[in-house]
Amino acid sequence: MKSATEYLWFNTKHHREFINITDKVQEIVHGSGISEGFVLVSAMHITAAVYVNDAEAGIIADIEKLLEQLAPYRTDYKHHDTGESNADAHLKSLLLHHQVIVPITDGKLDFGPWQQIYYAEFDGQRRKRVIVKAIGD
Amino acid sequence: MKSATEYLWFNTKHHREFINITDKVQEIVHGSGISEGFVLVSAMHITAAVYVNDAEAGIIADIEKLLEQLAPYRTDYKHHDTGESNADAHLKSLLLHHQVIVPITDGKLDFGPWQQIYYAEFDGQRRKRVIVKAIGD
Amino acid sequence: MKSATEYLWFNTKHHREFINITDKVQEIVHGSGISEGFVLVSAMHITAAVYVNDAEAGIIADIEKLLEQLAPYRTDYKHHDTGESNADAHLKSLLLHHQVIVPITDGKLDFGPWQQIYYAEFDGQRRKRVIVKAIGD
Repeated sequence: MKSATEYLWFNTKHHREFINITDKVQEIVHGSGISEGFVLVSAMHITAAVYVNDAEAGIIADIEKLLEQLAPYRTDYKHHDTGESNADAHLKSLLLHHQVIVPITDGKLDFGPWQQIYYAEFDGQRRKRVIVKAIGD
Repeated sequence: MKSATEYLWFNTKHHREFINITDKVQEIVHGSGISEGFVLVSAMHITAAVYVNDAEAGIIADIEKLLEQLAPYRTDYKHHDTGESNADAHLKSLLLHHQVIVPITDGKLDFGPWQQIYYAEFDGQRRKRVIVKAIGD
Repeated sequence: MKSATEYLWFNTKHHREFINITDKVQEIVHGSGISEGFVLVSAMHITAAVYVNDAEAGIIADIEKLLEQLAPYRTDYKHHDTGESNADAHLKSLLLHHQVIVPITDGKLDFGPWQQIYYAEFDGQRRKRVIVKAIGD
C-alpha cells in the first residue's frame, strides 16, 4: 500500500469564501503514484467545510444563502459565552460536512461530469488547513 | 491491497426517487474477494445523494418532506440564471451528503440491524451513475 | 495492508447525549500498529450520528438546538404509523451524518488543533454501537 499526505493552507481575503481545490487534489494524487485507491480531503478546522458540487457561481451563492437561512449569523449562541463570535461558522460547517472521499481510478479522480471539490470557509482571514491524504496501490 | 470498481446506472421513472441499493453493493463486495476493507458508495452527479438509514416507507417520506422544507423547489435560485431549474436538487444533495463509506468485515457489509444504503434521486428521469469502489485485503 | 476493527458500545443515561470518543479512537489506532491510513468511525444505528467539532459545552448546546429547530420532535411523522416515535432522531442523524473518516499519520489521528470526535445520541437509553475500523500500513 502506498500513501501520500499533503496540507493545503488557506488565508482567505474575505470572512466567507468558496475555493475550488480540484486541480490541487488531482496534482497530489498524480504525485503520489497511486493508481487505485481513495483520497480524503478534510478540513482541519471546525469552521470550514469541504464538499463536492458544481463550479457555478449561482449555485455557490444559493449554497451560501441556504446555510445562512438554516444556521444564521447571530450573537446569542451559547458558544459565544466563551468570548467567540463564530458559532454560525461551526454550524454551517457541520451542515455541509467537513470532508469528502474521492475515488482514484487509473491515477485520476473518478468523478462525474460536473463534480468539483470545494473548500468552504466560514470564518476566514486567518491561516487554516486542509489535509489531502491518499492511500492505495 | 485489492480493489474493485463498479458503476451503478439509474434512470428513474420519477423526478425524485429513493432506491435501496444495499444488495447491489453487497454483491460487488462479494465479487471483489475483499474480506477486510472499506467500500465507498458515491453519487457521480451533483443532484443526487447516497445515505444510510431505514428501509421503511414512512421515514423515507419524512426525509423527503424535511428536505423540501429546508431546501424547497423554487424558481428564484441564482443557479437558475444559467437556464437550469434544479438548484433545489443540488441543495438537497448537499444536505443529505453524496456518499457513504461502509466497512467490510469478513467479506460482508459490517452494518447494524437496520442500516440500508439508499440512492436518493432529486433530479431524475435521465441516466445517472453511482460509483461503488472497494479497497482492502 | 493492516486492519483493525473494534466496536464501542453505548447505553446513555439520557435520551439525547453527546459523548467525546476521541481518546477511544486514538487508543484503537495505537493498538492497530497502523502508522499511515484511515480510521472510519461510523454509527451502526440510524438514530445516532458521529461528527468532528469542538469539545466546548456551548457549541454542543447550539448544535442540539439547531437540530431541534430543523428536525423537531413531533408526533405526526409518517414513520410513526409503524408504532415508532423516533423519526426526529433519524432526521437529526442524517443532517449531522453518521460517520467520519480520520486520517492516520505517524500512528496518530491527524487532526487540527480543535478537532474532536463526538458520538451524538438522539434516541438513547438502550445499547447501541459504533464501529471503529482502521486500514493502512
